[in-house]
Amino acid sequence: MSIVEDVDRTALGRARRRGEEMGLDAIVASSYESVSHLSGVSIMTQRAIPDRLEIVVLPVDAEPVFLVCNIEEAQVRAESWINDVRIYVEFVETPVVALAKLLRELGLERATLGLELRALNAADHGDLLELIPGATVVGVDAALADLRAIKSPAEITLLSDAALRTDAAIRRAFESAAPGVTERAVASRLAAEVQASADSLAFLAFGAGPSAGIAHPVATDRPLERGDVLRCDVGGQYSGYYSDLARTAVAGAASPALTSDYARLWEAHEEVISQVAPGVPASHLYAVCVKAFERRGLTLNLPHIGHSLGLGLHEAPMLSPFDDTELQEGMMIAVEPAHRDGGPILHVEDLVLVTADGHKVVSRSADWSTLLVCGA
Amino acid sequence: MSIVEDVDRTALGRARRRGEEMGLDAIVASSYESVSHLSGVSIMTQRAIPDRLEIVVLPVDAEPVFLVCNIEEAQVRAESWINDVRIYVEFVETPVVALAKLLRELGLERATLGLELRALNAADHGDLLELIPGATVVGVDAALADLRAIKSPAEITLLSDAALRTDAAIRRAFESAAPGVTERAVASRLAAEVQASADSLAFLAFGAGPSAGIAHPVATDRPLERGDVLRCDVGGQYSGYYSDLARTAVAGAASPALTSDYARLWEAHEEVISQVAPGVPASHLYAVCVKAFERRGLTLNLPHIGHSLGLGLHEAPMLSPFDDTELQEGMMIAVEPAHRDGGPILHVEDLVLVTADGHKVVSRSADWSTLLVCGA
Repeated sequence: MSIVEDVDRTALGRARRRGEEMGLDAIVASSYESVSHLSGVSIMTQRAIPDRLEIVVLPVDAEPVFLVCNIEEAQVRAESWINDVRIYVEFVETPVVALAKLLRELGLERATLGLELRALNAADHGDLLELIPGATVVGVDAALADLRAIKSPAEITLLSDAALRTDAAIRRAFESAAPGVTERAVASRLAAEVQASADSLAFLAFGAGPSAGIAHPVATDRPLERGDVLRCDVGGQYSGYYSDLARTAVAGAASPALTSDYARLWEAHEEVISQVAPGVPASHLYAVCVKAFERRGLTLNLPHIGHSLGLGLHEAPMLSPFDDTELQEGMMIAVEPAHRDGGPILHVEDLVLVTADGHKVVSRSADWSTLLVCGA
Repeated sequence: MSIVEDVDRTALGRARRRGEEMGLDAIVASSYESVSHLSGVSIMTQRAIPDRLEIVVLPVDAEPVFLVCNIEEAQVRAESWINDVRIYVEFVETPVVALAKLLRELGLERATLGLELRALNAADHGDLLELIPGATVVGVDAALADLRAIKSPAEITLLSDAALRTDAAIRRAFESAAPGVTERAVASRLAAEVQASADSLAFLAFGAGPSAGIAHPVATDRPLERGDVLRCDVGGQYSGYYSDLARTAVAGAASPALTSDYARLWEAHEEVISQVAPGVPASHLYAVCVKAFERRGLTLNLPHIGHSLGLGLHEAPMLSPFDDTELQEGMMIAVEPAHRDGGPILHVEDLVLVTADGHKVVSRSADWSTLLVCGA
């Protein structure tokens, strides 16, 4: 059974209503995020092997049908709340041929279909339209992303727990670091700790000293030196959902300048978070961050300072100057300002729940408000 | 500088010739794999954030141009052998608007363009055709995949080294396992060892005991019991390239039946590998595996028993009954038969280089021909 049982009727029901409002006959969801959300099953190979499509067909006036690759059949039958499961055999027929057959069987070959046009590749899309030329296609990427942005109570519990576990894992790994320990050993410990806290490690960026200034650093055999900045941005997978946290620390001892830079970054971070509440546009948080950085002599050169988090890593809304989506109760936002002035990047990231009357930070297993000194 | 310097002229030159043969005016590559191959730069966010396009435009009769998101500019200017780098700013303009502008500037707005239609989503593809309606589009996914399938000497060295490192990492992690150690501790150790051997851990599946029979297991706090099968399928990232190895072991002691099953699986694995040589169709290896399994009373229910490996995880050719691509010198093939009869899955995977007169297994840091007993 899926971890997020209460999404069941809610997710399918909300998607159906949105489909009706948009004048659709059916939604045909094929992104990892929407398929997981609508079916309750996280099929990890959807990410690793994107050609192996898994598809939820949700007519607005009939029961949903789940079309899956035969390799995933056992998991889907065990875990999904969708009872009508259809199978295609990989390499025997393409997923799109199987989909066209299914749509015809459901009487939807001349229907108005809501497709995720950013999740379907141009070749598959072209093939599908050739097979059911009478259908009308409407993009539903944004509509389905909107639905996913509001988390259910079980999703909030899951994402909060995931964030706390990942935060504690980072803390343990950073506390094992010290001058003389190699970058590679710290990265390895981070991987071990996040893996142990999660279903699996999803991604890991770790830089120290010279490489703390690089966006996508690779750990080397260099031993940490006193004063090296340690910076990580890591995430795990938890029942198909992401954690995503960035933390900054220093090895051995911090210079007064670094201590001060970090303290000002943290203040700016808290100032942005203090503005999180229902009705606030995502773009307002970016604007607050710009001013908070300017006032403190920090350097912001990022196209966004955060994003919604859930089944996807960078979900809508994005905390960018161009996203005016109003925050709503139940959204969970990763707020991640970074100071980047050419030296080491100072980066912090927390997960923030939008509550009825404001917000709640759910990702702090320890006090990160002052710079952590590792191996002092 | 890129690790695979010798791909430089070779990759661009071969792609250009292929484009000419196909009657194209330019290739517009946008997949992670092709962009890495043609530019020499591995931009990790291309996988994590697929909407952030990075694009190589390679006219058949002019110098290549690399269109990248401003966030990646520093890395690209430092590492790519393509000198003409153009920038778009995320959220200010979409990558497709920037691409259309660039194609117009290069006089290609009415040209015949080779696009990767399986890498470009239907929305971006539709937007591009609206912006340059005079262009003719041809799919080049398979053509570019063909070029990537033949590895350069530096790529062969890199992939062989990566495979050996990952194999040694698995061996160390398995040797730390024993009855009483939890599944989670073994998974965590695997993550730590692979991370320490690589730029980063790319994926990790680990099952033990009851979960050794599940395709995508999640490690729990259950302590290993004597006789539990341990099965892993893991990969790392090495300068943008994958390792991918599966290994099977047992905790404490093996039953005679398990020892025998594993020995027969290994024999079948070796029989398949013995057939790897230039000119052999990929589908022939699948057929050999079917017979090798039948003869030994093993159960094969997989749509493929391996795949090419490189910048992508499952690259062409696939070792499936339907892929008749002939193997060529310089291909590197992951051969991965598995015995799946409802009990624990027994799974082995090695990386095999196709040589001028046969093949060479490049992934064995230790002897896996008999079942490894952990913590005996």
